[in-house]
Amino acid sequence: MTSPHAALAARLGYAFRQPERLVQALTHRSFGAEHNERLEFVGDAVLNCVIAATLFDRLPGVPEGDLSRLRAHLVNRDTLARLARGLELGTLIRFGEGERKGGGRERGSTAADALEAVFGAVFVDGGFEAARDAIHAVFADDLARLDPAILGKDPKTRLQEWLQARRMPVPEYAVVEVAGAAHAQTFTVECRIAGLSIATRGEGASRRAAEQGAAAAAYAIVSSTTGVSDHG
Amino acid sequence: MTSPHAALAARLGYAFRQPERLVQALTHRSFGAEHNERLEFVGDAVLNCVIAATLFDRLPGVPEGDLSRLRAHLVNRDTLARLARGLELGTLIRFGEGERKGGGRERGSTAADALEAVFGAVFVDGGFEAARDAIHAVFADDLARLDPAILGKDPKTRLQEWLQARRMPVPEYAVVEVAGAAHAQTFTVECRIAGLSIATRGEGASRRAAEQGAAAAAYAIVSSTTGVSDHG
Repeated sequence: MTSPHAALAARLGYAFRQPERLVQALTHRSFGAEHNERLEFVGDAVLNCVIAATLFDRLPGVPEGDLSRLRAHLVNRDTLARLARGLELGTLIRFGEGERKGGGRERGSTAADALEAVFGAVFVDGGFEAARDAIHAVFADDLARLDPAILGKDPKTRLQEWLQARRMPVPEYAVVEVAGAAHAQTFTVECRIAGLSIATRGEGASRRAAEQGAAAAAYAIVSSTTGVSDHG
Repeated sequence: MTSPHAALAARLGYAFRQPERLVQALTHRSFGAEHNERLEFVGDAVLNCVIAATLFDRLPGVPEGDLSRLRAHLVNRDTLARLARGLELGTLIRFGEGERKGGGRERGSTAADALEAVFGAVFVDGGFEAARDAIHAVFADDLARLDPAILGKDPKTRLQEWLQARRMPVPEYAVVEVAGAAHAQTFTVECRIAGLSIATRGEGASRRAAEQGAAAAAYAIVSSTTGVSDHG
């Protein structure tokens, strides 16, 4: 492993048992030898699984539909290309000559694919928990917006302050469903932000818990959509 | 946990630390209380990840496109509904009264969703490896077709015998690409089966290795598509 590879491994917080797996993750198909497409297949699946599990843990009151939507915000070509740029992955990818001259190194999609392959390589080399930790390291800033400890204040307060600081309208909360028998009711609350066409839901055993869930989902979406982080 | 729940847990090969998670996985939204949709979100992601990793391990010469296709064969609503029936999941699901009277228990899609939620519950309760083992237990017959130990003979021989036993045409192999420098060439071979409109690919450092990869992918597809297992 060359020293740029070692630097990348350090940023992933992972030491490869078989460093050639990292090299393979950074080998474009055009190079010919063992390339990264199979590792990308695994990495894509691992990434989606880790982000799903993380959202499940950190956003307890948020229903499936909003978790799905949030995952799509967090895991997409643009985000992966941006994160790959931050890791300077492009400079490490091995290309065939034609592809290299054709500007392969500058294509964000190629770097995004390689980043998924890198996560796949960590998984194949070290297992699920190693991959989860590497993904959490790379997505640290993006996931910080979901972290209750970093959010600090409760999600409703946090969302309101975030919107007010940007002179945006305050959110409105409405109970849209109360289901179940009296001893086991589930409240579903929708949080709407006029003008932003955002409507998220939260569920909980009380109206207040459901509101907090809906607010947490809305906060995660507005803060990731605008790309402005606010956890200082 | 009631005894049918214990029987299900036994078939998953997993003892829940918090058995209420299994109960939640078997609770339809119409029931009202903590229902299974969030667990289904996690379970779907875990299932896709486990199957991706399993295909990666068991089909070394098979390129990403065929791994993707195979996963879609293995993980889909029909397969999940069939497996859920085998586990008699339908009888364990808790419904709200309206849904129950409306025949919710008989809907395959509801049972398929619940099975994903069950995998999600194992993951949340016991981690990735517990979920992987449970998924492997439930998918044992479907995955057996991919297991080199069970395949026994090499994939090309196996495929040919399988087709001959059914009076189907023999497969044809063609090298479609040779990439890379002389010391690190990668062969891509396509395996076509006339009349079945199946064309799979294999890659490897030799033509023979690539043919075996393509044959393994084709065998997995024909045997799963026709629904006829042949590993006696």
